[in-house]
Amino acid sequence: MKKIEGGLENISGYSFSAIEAGIRYENRLDYTLIKSDLPCNAAGVFTICKVIAAPVKLCKEKIENPINAILAHSTIANAGTGAQGYDNAKMLTQNIAELINVDSSSVLITGTGVIGRQLPVEKMISSHKELVEKLNPNNGQLFSKAIMTTDTFAKFYAVEFNASGKTYHIGGTAKGSGMIAPNMATLLAYVLTDAPIKKDDLKRIFKEKIEKTLNSLTIDGDMSTNDTAIILSPIKEETLNSDSDLSAFADALETVLMNLAEMLAFDGEGATKLIKIYVKRAKNYEDAKKVGKSIAESPLVKTAFFGEDPNWGRIACAAGYAGAELEEEKLSISFGNVKVFETGTPVDFDDKLLKNIISQREINLEVDLGLGTAETLILTCDLSYDYVKINGEYTT
Amino acid sequence: MKKIEGGLENISGYSFSAIEAGIRYENRLDYTLIKSDLPCNAAGVFTICKVIAAPVKLCKEKIENPINAILAHSTIANAGTGAQGYDNAKMLTQNIAELINVDSSSVLITGTGVIGRQLPVEKMISSHKELVEKLNPNNGQLFSKAIMTTDTFAKFYAVEFNASGKTYHIGGTAKGSGMIAPNMATLLAYVLTDAPIKKDDLKRIFKEKIEKTLNSLTIDGDMSTNDTAIILSPIKEETLNSDSDLSAFADALETVLMNLAEMLAFDGEGATKLIKIYVKRAKNYEDAKKVGKSIAESPLVKTAFFGEDPNWGRIACAAGYAGAELEEEKLSISFGNVKVFETGTPVDFDDKLLKNIISQREINLEVDLGLGTAETLILTCDLSYDYVKINGEYTT
Repeated sequence: MKKIEGGLENISGYSFSAIEAGIRYENRLDYTLIKSDLPCNAAGVFTICKVIAAPVKLCKEKIENPINAILAHSTIANAGTGAQGYDNAKMLTQNIAELINVDSSSVLITGTGVIGRQLPVEKMISSHKELVEKLNPNNGQLFSKAIMTTDTFAKFYAVEFNASGKTYHIGGTAKGSGMIAPNMATLLAYVLTDAPIKKDDLKRIFKEKIEKTLNSLTIDGDMSTNDTAIILSPIKEETLNSDSDLSAFADALETVLMNLAEMLAFDGEGATKLIKIYVKRAKNYEDAKKVGKSIAESPLVKTAFFGEDPNWGRIACAAGYAGAELEEEKLSISFGNVKVFETGTPVDFDDKLLKNIISQREINLEVDLGLGTAETLILTCDLSYDYVKINGEYTT
Repeated sequence: MKKIEGGLENISGYSFSAIEAGIRYENRLDYTLIKSDLPCNAAGVFTICKVIAAPVKLCKEKIENPINAILAHSTIANAGTGAQGYDNAKMLTQNIAELINVDSSSVLITGTGVIGRQLPVEKMISSHKELVEKLNPNNGQLFSKAIMTTDTFAKFYAVEFNASGKTYHIGGTAKGSGMIAPNMATLLAYVLTDAPIKKDDLKRIFKEKIEKTLNSLTIDGDMSTNDTAIILSPIKEETLNSDSDLSAFADALETVLMNLAEMLAFDGEGATKLIKIYVKRAKNYEDAKKVGKSIAESPLVKTAFFGEDPNWGRIACAAGYAGAELEEEKLSISFGNVKVFETGTPVDFDDKLLKNIISQREINLEVDLGLGTAETLILTCDLSYDYVKINGEYTT
């Protein structure tokens, strides 16, 4: 497997377009389309929030179908919009389906933006002709740009890998920032591959790799109404199905998703640091995850990282209230390779070395529970003035 | 029942002292003592964090005993200090017990401050003579001042109430700010009464009222290693034990604790607003609490309040991922008396009226789940630049 430059445009068999439809603002890319040459197997992972946006409801209904296209709108999320919002989402996919001559059951829709506002559907439908005309296999990075909200850079990553003597490709793109940016909802991720994978394998592997990557990411602990991750793989007679082929595919997919997750953490709203929290020797995986998330979501821990304060007391405390099995006498904490707390007792450390570690843009934190063999990695960022500015000063 | 001016000094039968023991800094009140004339029944509520400070461990061991005195130290929490920290806490209570001539099993100790540092026990023991000499029934407010860390004002509240034709008093004091301030741990609360209440009644009523008041408070969702709330009531032969007497006591106690909770929220680190979240018609009490806490702890909701942005989308979303039973079609949200979201659909509202409500220093938010009859009130504050400043710029 190796990284290739660029994003979705590396994956043959798909075309992309992005236009300024004037959904909420003028002169802003806000409406995009991915079209596949062949019908695809799809798999999706969606928000578990009980307040769910209309496009997510529709995706969940259609994700088991063969998929030909995905619409994506930004600036308005179509969340908290009741029955009308659902009907609007349906209408948009139906109209696009007619224009590209596929069944409407094969068109997905995703959205991000302000909650509680209806989409200007007539305006959007009147832009569909342009959206279809501009479809082009080279527009992959334009798609990545058009889905951004408070993101400060477009996020994409692509790799190639070998399976059964052939070279295949996987490309992904995502938008994030705060799980909900200033009224702009959502983590959205789209992954495309030219590798033909059977539906069941695709679902199983995608779910497993999302759990290890994007689900290990927490910017502010908030979860959006619109969170959606989708993968498409062309339906072909011959598929990659040997263990070694599927394993090569799974590794490549994990690499794409992990790189997107790190970019999302780096670009968390107002973030100045990427924090990688390695939780080790937990009793079980759920406990490891609880401890990692509790630390990652603690405003006190996050502001300490912003202040470059190696405040292990706050970390121990957040681990202690995570709801996981934990014994203070067995707990150890390290920043990088500097241990500061060992089996329940503070230890002497090289102050200068620690100061150096904590001042880096990327910091590894290790929390060793000393209880079992389970472990996990959680990605997060610090909490800065700019987070408050971005999310506080913006007023609808 | 009526409010009386002042704090703990209103409660006869107790004396107080506070000194500058130089625990971590010079010229700062950091060591305090409450002494009761009579042995007292005590009840306590402690942190449920699994990383527990030494003084809390000791309190939990002694709380069932008759209690004569409570020591409190600030600036160093004596948390994350292993066996030595525990021995130190024990030594301090033993020495004070000798000086005031009571059994050491009757002396409690509480602490707040930096985690992971040992107390200067010899220095503290050498200050005990002064601490005992300065005991005075008039020093109630001095005690409140000495337990402050990042608090911006001393918090105390006292009421008198009638029971069986007599007048009794309850006074309380607390320190808070961030659940853990810049390396300064803790919510500490001390309540004293001259009403003689049987141990079992005291325990039951205190626990119930703490749940309704201090446990409804969340500044940043972090929980400290040192959180402690203690009540003392003198042991006498005759006690208040009729239903009406106990109910008068319980009401008075709730008033004291609720006023302390509101003061703590108002004085949350960097807070500019007190937010009262009324969760109504939840399926059950646990669900109501989950929804209220999820909203109160959402950084996106908190920064929106700071920005005076009535961002109900973020509120609906935080309710949706609380883990409580929730149906979007039954959910309604109001700021004060202005409804913005009704049974799953945005509603038109008077923009000017809403702007006025959201700009107040105290804001009532109502979240109606429409599912059952359970309800709760959660208190919190907004998240401002100053929260980041206080918790990020401070470096050990």
